[in-house]
Amino acid sequence: MNDIFPLRRLGAEFLATAFLLAAILGSGIMAERLAGGNVAVALLGNTFATIFALYFLIEIFGPMSGAHMNPAVSLLMTWRGELDRKLLCGYLVAQVAGAILGAWLANAMFDLPVWQLAAKARTGMGQWLAEAVATAGLLLVVLKAPAQKVAACVAAYIGAAFWFTSSTSFANPAVTIGRMFSDTFSGIAPQDAPAFIAAQGAGILLAVLFDRMLPRNAGV
Amino acid sequence: MNDIFPLRRLGAEFLATAFLLAAILGSGIMAERLAGGNVAVALLGNTFATIFALYFLIEIFGPMSGAHMNPAVSLLMTWRGELDRKLLCGYLVAQVAGAILGAWLANAMFDLPVWQLAAKARTGMGQWLAEAVATAGLLLVVLKAPAQKVAACVAAYIGAAFWFTSSTSFANPAVTIGRMFSDTFSGIAPQDAPAFIAAQGAGILLAVLFDRMLPRNAGV
Amino acid sequence: MNDIFPLRRLGAEFLATAFLLAAILGSGIMAERLAGGNVAVALLGNTFATIFALYFLIEIFGPMSGAHMNPAVSLLMTWRGELDRKLLCGYLVAQVAGAILGAWLANAMFDLPVWQLAAKARTGMGQWLAEAVATAGLLLVVLKAPAQKVAACVAAYIGAAFWFTSSTSFANPAVTIGRMFSDTFSGIAPQDAPAFIAAQGAGILLAVLFDRMLPRNAGV
Amino acid sequence: MNDIFPLRRLGAEFLATAFLLAAILGSGIMAERLAGGNVAVALLGNTFATIFALYFLIEIFGPMSGAHMNPAVSLLMTWRGELDRKLLCGYLVAQVAGAILGAWLANAMFDLPVWQLAAKARTGMGQWLAEAVATAGLLLVVLKAPAQKVAACVAAYIGAAFWFTSSTSFANPAVTIGRMFSDTFSGIAPQDAPAFIAAQGAGILLAVLFDRMLPRNAGV
Repeated sequence: MNDIFPLRRLGAEFLATAFLLAAILGSGIMAERLAGGNVAVALLGNTFATIFALYFLIEIFGPMSGAHMNPAVSLLMTWRGELDRKLLCGYLVAQVAGAILGAWLANAMFDLPVWQLAAKARTGMGQWLAEAVATAGLLLVVLKAPAQKVAACVAAYIGAAFWFTSSTSFANPAVTIGRMFSDTFSGIAPQDAPAFIAAQGAGILLAVLFDRMLPRNAGV
Repeated sequence: MNDIFPLRRLGAEFLATAFLLAAILGSGIMAERLAGGNVAVALLGNTFATIFALYFLIEIFGPMSGAHMNPAVSLLMTWRGELDRKLLCGYLVAQVAGAILGAWLANAMFDLPVWQLAAKARTGMGQWLAEAVATAGLLLVVLKAPAQKVAACVAAYIGAAFWFTSSTSFANPAVTIGRMFSDTFSGIAPQDAPAFIAAQGAGILLAVLFDRMLPRNAGV
Repeated sequence: MNDIFPLRRLGAEFLATAFLLAAILGSGIMAERLAGGNVAVALLGNTFATIFALYFLIEIFGPMSGAHMNPAVSLLMTWRGELDRKLLCGYLVAQVAGAILGAWLANAMFDLPVWQLAAKARTGMGQWLAEAVATAGLLLVVLKAPAQKVAACVAAYIGAAFWFTSSTSFANPAVTIGRMFSDTFSGIAPQDAPAFIAAQGAGILLAVLFDRMLPRNAGV
Repeated sequence: MNDIFPLRRLGAEFLATAFLLAAILGSGIMAERLAGGNVAVALLGNTFATIFALYFLIEIFGPMSGAHMNPAVSLLMTWRGELDRKLLCGYLVAQVAGAILGAWLANAMFDLPVWQLAAKARTGMGQWLAEAVATAGLLLVVLKAPAQKVAACVAAYIGAAFWFTSSTSFANPAVTIGRMFSDTFSGIAPQDAPAFIAAQGAGILLAVLFDRMLPRNAGV
């Protein structure tokens, strides 16, 4: 509408992504501290906190900014003409900035040094394949989910993908960047991030390919 | 309508808050007794019991009293003109009284002395920051959730916030007071409660600020 | 409609209750076998299996017979005129018979002797108070839940009540009887069952009292 | 519509089944690796990943191909005239091929040899009875669930059945075949698969019998 309007939308995208990263990283810290070394229990806590956050964030911020919280989603939406080309750059900046702020907020809430870089290695063919598959699957869900059930479908998808991919499904370049800034359970070493983001890029192409091949929801 | 009507609404608010505290504290006792020292497993049980309770309480009592169960919510609703100013004081009393009764009920059900005070210390800058963030997030969810999905969104929010905040997200002055009366897993020492409630007050202000800055659900 | 019709409804009630008990007891056996002594983990598995079963059973059998699966619910429905007085006795028989068959089915699926009686003691003032509270809460949920959300609300209620009551919330005389026939994680010794059922009866009275005192869903 | 259309539907069925098996087997590998020997925790992770996958797959692929992902469902739908008889064979091939590809994808993502056969024995009267019961229950849910809630009901059903049956409820011949190709937590030795599939066949007959006996959703 008016000039100030896009700014509010970018603010919503920024805030939503900050909350998402605070949820992913904060719950990872909490889970690791409490789990007494049982990593499966820690991942259960981390998974549920993450997907509960995705659910309410998409329900709450969806009507404001689309609640992409993910450059892969914003790119796909721009390609399909559903996001104004002029807003794309602003969305990407808001998402990455929000992700970093969210990481710092998680660190602060758990009395950790705000500035830190992750040391956790995440690399190898299996994990790169997993990131490509995970990103393609996520985008397919975003494209095909019934309008009233997008939040539930995305949450369910990530809840499954945390466990069925060897990388625990980042599937999101902004999340990948944000996770570099927390040397905790859910972190990723900065030198491993570029390959993850490249694999996510391959996942975007895969999603476009799937989208072309699948029926237009008129089967059966 | 008639004079008796507000009394029934206050009764609903009282009963809902009592159930909520019985659920939070009772499941904390059960979880700690059974978890054999694995605190992450105990927090999983405590989390699910609490959010399941929130879900059914909001669905059941929402049409009766709004099912605030939280002075922060009632204050915000009064400020927005959605709760009659004359009822606010009654709501706060019903919530605090219900919270205390719920704590006593949990103690009685688990054969513990009904009267007790928590010894569990919960303090420090990280936890106060967490309470402010948690309360702001909760109020944002209450304000912005689609009408049909308020119960699911609040439950999802608290399910995430139990894990992503270092304080396990009380986000509720009545809950904070109720938890003082159970010297168990979910309790809080009385001397630590005022700072928590003050942080929650800061969270209310933060929520009002966010509400002012975010778009009016007309984006994308 | 015709004579055969009630028989089909009783068959639905029988089948639903049998499934419910097979789910409660079967998942208890599975959970105890796998949990390696961590009772909280076992109760998590038992809880989720039970509430998932409640959800699909109420959605599937609700339109056929009401999917009460619980004499306390059938009694309340008869009192409110929503269940034909002439069907009540048939419902109670179908529920108890289904519950016993479900217990035997669980025993058979896990290669245990089909005929057995539980030795697990469940007794004491705390647990009786818990059963009265749990039954009253369940009936309140059944009475007040929005029509489209009864299954979700009942599942959420039981998911909370398994943890916030010291008795793990049987809240159901047919379930109490069925659990006598499996000497496993979820069983109850026959000599402790009558007091549980009496406490559940007190819960019915409490629910009627609450129902009288609460507003008619016209508040706020 | 045109000739190419059924091919797209078969492609959707193939892709959905591949995702399902990748989810079941991948989450089984992840869960076993992280659980440190606590099998109940591993099964919790495996259960949630599987039912979250079922939920989003049915929501996403349901409008394209029906999202059967299960020869037992396709057979039943053909028998009821809801799936074109000429498509049945194509559906079965797509499901089995998708299941095998999904198993290989899970192996590849976790850096395991793509080609492998399971050694895990799953046999005995209890488990065969369980597979017959599990399949009958699943088909009953598919037949009777309200249209808007099929995905939620199927997910809830499998979430319960993973725990209340001694076989962890395969209830699906394509899944049984796919699980042969992963020597991990969720695998089944090839020599044990035929008896499982035969038991699932008995479950189909049981479901037809139940369907005949139950009321036509017109009770109460």
